Amino acid sequence: MKQPKISLVGAGPGDPELLTLKAVRTLQRSDVVLYDALVNPSILEWAPVSAPKVFVGKRAGKKRYTQDEINLLMVQYAFSHGHVVRLKGGDPFVFGRGYEELEYARAFDIQSSVVPGISSANSLAALQGVPVTSRGFSESFWVITGTTKTGQLSSDIRLAAQSTATVVVLMGMNKLPEIARLFIAEGRPELPVMVIQNGSREDERFVLGKINTIVEKVQEQKISTPGVIVIGETVQLHAQWPAAFRHLNQAELLNKINNF
Amino acid sequence: MKQPKISLVGAGPGDPELLTLKAVRTLQRSDVVLYDALVNPSILEWAPVSAPKVFVGKRAGKKRYTQDEINLLMVQYAFSHGHVVRLKGGDPFVFGRGYEELEYARAFDIQSSVVPGISSANSLAALQGVPVTSRGFSESFWVITGTTKTGQLSSDIRLAAQSTATVVVLMGMNKLPEIARLFIAEGRPELPVMVIQNGSREDERFVLGKINTIVEKVQEQKISTPGVIVIGETVQLHAQWPAAFRHLNQAELLNKINNF
Repeated sequence: MKQPKISLVGAGPGDPELLTLKAVRTLQRSDVVLYDALVNPSILEWAPVSAPKVFVGKRAGKKRYTQDEINLLMVQYAFSHGHVVRLKGGDPFVFGRGYEELEYARAFDIQSSVVPGISSANSLAALQGVPVTSRGFSESFWVITGTTKTGQLSSDIRLAAQSTATVVVLMGMNKLPEIARLFIAEGRPELPVMVIQNGSREDERFVLGKINTIVEKVQEQKISTPGVIVIGETVQLHAQWPAAFRHLNQAELLNKINNF
Repeated sequence: MKQPKISLVGAGPGDPELLTLKAVRTLQRSDVVLYDALVNPSILEWAPVSAPKVFVGKRAGKKRYTQDEINLLMVQYAFSHGHVVRLKGGDPFVFGRGYEELEYARAFDIQSSVVPGISSANSLAALQGVPVTSRGFSESFWVITGTTKTGQLSSDIRLAAQSTATVVVLMGMNKLPEIARLFIAEGRPELPVMVIQNGSREDERFVLGKINTIVEKVQEQKISTPGVIVIGETVQLHAQWPAAFRHLNQAELLNKINNF
């Protein structure tokens, strides 16, 4: 009998090269892989051919397994096969319900470990040349889920709208109009916004706008899920940000960067 | 003549296995590497033997080069050698001054790209089994620098202390007493805190406490820089969090996780 073991592994935001060496080595040593919808299938090739690869994500918006079923499947496979890699898009501890899965495994005294992944939260803006922080623009970034258990927008978004933080909303595409209204209520209709769909993948698309235009632009250009919403002054650092819409002109931008 | 080119690459938090495949391939194609103090030296071995590796970080707290000198060096090497990899600890766009370096390169019409890295912001807590977000505990996390240009603590920290966000402070070890006072002023002396030094490295150390005890504990155990401060309810999910200090007992914890 193999020793039951569970590794919670982050697969990164989509590009299979944004996987860590540690994730590769962990997959190479797996006996089973349970993977989610947002995991690039080519990443599964790092696992042995002999290891079953079990899809436990959503297909066409429908869940194949409930969270309870995934927990149970993971534990059953650990006892029957040995080393289970639970592969999740992005970072497993950023809105991934990863902790809940590890806690469940621990109740069965199964050894577990975590391999962090590149989170969509900071990487997708970066790949578009937009830093989530930059001196003179933003001293912090705030990562919020648009999808809470209750279906309500997190109350933290109102505080975020009062801060200088770059606000990154994951899984919040269907809450975009509500988010925009919140920022408008806080007197910030002109704040730059970027929405990125399928970030880091070959079919990546994005749209730039402001709080008071972004909802219309997203509809016009048919940007949909999976999407990341990035709200803040650093968005105007994007190469395609129209000069006419800049809060600061190029000279002011450079001056701000150099002298802040 | 080789084409001048600059790649801004994230080296991850310390463990050389927390490097991405994309970073490895980018290093393999480098002609020069400029690297910072927090980059694990074994990562440099991915670059060709023939490529000069130039240390541009701080040693014993003293800067070897100013930011202006680093910018200039980077551009000079791009013109003299070709492909410069600018290798930074963590993620280059999370408080890394990465954007400023790319903006400087762009002024010389040098082609540039970004390879995101695993940020200390979410990975170091995860490696300790602490999620920055978890249903029922925290719907967001807020990443703040303790080191602003002005030397002041970011005003965002006061807002963060009012939120339900897990607050992660990077480069803020010397501001810990001030941060603790802010949270106490917001009526949260009992909030769990974890401080991690040398996260993901072999010499990693950490301390668990509460807002009103953490400063003393950090002094007692001589935890120092480089350190990450994690403040929030999810810290009590750490395996070594003393049951007596839990806001919630084990049954309540599990119940909260399962039913939230």
